[in-house]
Amino acid sequence: MTSARAGIDVGGTKCLGVLIDEDGAVIAEERRPTPQQGDALIETLAEVVGALGTMATIGIGVPGLITLDGVLKASPNLRMIIDLDVTERLSERLDRRISVGNDATCATLAEWTVGAGRGVSDLVMVTLGTGIGGGVVAAGHLVVGANGFTGEFGHMVVDPHGLPCPCGRRGCWERYASGSGLAQLARTAAVGGRLRRVVDVAGGDAHAVRGEHVQAAAREGDDGALAVIDDFARWVALGLVNLTNALDPAAFVLGGGLAEGADLYLDPIQRWFEELLYSPRLRPHPALAFAELGERAGAIGAAMYAGDRQRPA
Amino acid sequence: MTSARAGIDVGGTKCLGVLIDEDGAVIAEERRPTPQQGDALIETLAEVVGALGTMATIGIGVPGLITLDGVLKASPNLRMIIDLDVTERLSERLDRRISVGNDATCATLAEWTVGAGRGVSDLVMVTLGTGIGGGVVAAGHLVVGANGFTGEFGHMVVDPHGLPCPCGRRGCWERYASGSGLAQLARTAAVGGRLRRVVDVAGGDAHAVRGEHVQAAAREGDDGALAVIDDFARWVALGLVNLTNALDPAAFVLGGGLAEGADLYLDPIQRWFEELLYSPRLRPHPALAFAELGERAGAIGAAMYAGDRQRPA
Repeated sequence: MTSARAGIDVGGTKCLGVLIDEDGAVIAEERRPTPQQGDALIETLAEVVGALGTMATIGIGVPGLITLDGVLKASPNLRMIIDLDVTERLSERLDRRISVGNDATCATLAEWTVGAGRGVSDLVMVTLGTGIGGGVVAAGHLVVGANGFTGEFGHMVVDPHGLPCPCGRRGCWERYASGSGLAQLARTAAVGGRLRRVVDVAGGDAHAVRGEHVQAAAREGDDGALAVIDDFARWVALGLVNLTNALDPAAFVLGGGLAEGADLYLDPIQRWFEELLYSPRLRPHPALAFAELGERAGAIGAAMYAGDRQRPA
Repeated sequence: MTSARAGIDVGGTKCLGVLIDEDGAVIAEERRPTPQQGDALIETLAEVVGALGTMATIGIGVPGLITLDGVLKASPNLRMIIDLDVTERLSERLDRRISVGNDATCATLAEWTVGAGRGVSDLVMVTLGTGIGGGVVAAGHLVVGANGFTGEFGHMVVDPHGLPCPCGRRGCWERYASGSGLAQLARTAAVGGRLRRVVDVAGGDAHAVRGEHVQAAAREGDDGALAVIDDFARWVALGLVNLTNALDPAAFVLGGGLAEGADLYLDPIQRWFEELLYSPRLRPHPALAFAELGERAGAIGAAMYAGDRQRPA
């Protein structure tokens, strides 16, 4: 009997499946485009499972609000799919037990077990992508919350008079500290005429400026771009400080698309963190690490999540 | 041999000691004024222990940043005392083992075990007093954090352009949602001429307005006072929403001096909570409960905290 565990991360554009061995190493991988409709999504997941081969357990990581029973209530990345009982539907389709969890919770489990947060009992993972998600490990336990909804960090309000958020509120953290937040900060500066080099890199249109253009100009040493990154870093640090005041983690693991610009962000985030933390000189500061498992973190964690739940008692 | 456990809560003005039985019921109580100097504090704690009688374990709850080894780094309520090794000093003085923890963490443990949060696996306690503190129970475990500093909720920044805080930052949550926050919101409205009845209750001086005057006028149905309470409730809800997005607790326990006005605050806090929560219609909302153990919560919890740590393995 195999001990391999399968995990699939359902992303906004692709479903990434992996098979991992006992040590968490990836031994097979499959990808499919993500359908934007419930029936088709279940079918695609079944296909990925079939293509991965033989496995002891199956776990699925899904973005959005996922109940403890594995029902997808709603997801900003899967707008057409509401109240889909992924656990029941896929279990029936495959005629075997599966487990479903939040994608960022799964990624946290993976980084905690075999990634940048190995061996840390109090850990917060923050994924800086289009939005902001994440997960919490506290007192040596993965925290899923009363309903499975921990880690919706992006909608912590950090400025009640701030930018409107599609969620209906104002000043949500992800309006500033995510990939779209960086782009927004950059466009505001560009339209104000403060980012000539960045606008050049973006092809001459201030409204077309995106995070990658800021990064490119910052790597050339452009002052305007570096100022935007400093502003962005201040917003990232503000949220990390709030989480530190609440949870006192030993480390943060920063993941998501923004982790790719780690070399540009790490120093200014550290500097602002020390500026904003309560009693900074009287306490150890949490380590800031960037995620190690890249785009596979969610799938690896989904496999581990299922392994935890489907192990014989 | 007795199974009674002693706990002492070190407050800004008084040290409150209790002896609890196996069920957590209080069987003896002692009070002393809190000295504002380290040597005298240790002596007072030893006196309280002596007066409480015979006990199996001794725990102390101290406000501020307390390390896992029981060193008081600094406390806003004990300004003259810095870097006091309470564990070592008091253990030596009594010639027996003691345990030291943060006062709000202890109060959380007490409310979770025998108070308003009984049996809840994912719980956040928030103490609304002069400042804001609290504690976290996640996945059925009391969370103390990597350094023992969880629950410093009052210094989560909720408005980076907001009111200056004595801690050196701007817009800390406790500038708005604490007892002093309520008084500040009220004075601003009073000085602006919007609180005639409240100013009357305060003796005619707008600058003398405090939270209790707002409460008294609100109980008479005064519109101005009710508007201040609504504004205050919005700030309380904002922080609770941020903690819900991060931790997804099943319940909040609200403690501290403000819990006494529970009847005035509960409805508006609930209303604003639903307004500010991410995806409010797709998820169960955490219960809002007011603390049940009153001023004894910290002492009862300190006794339980010690019991956990001094039990024979």
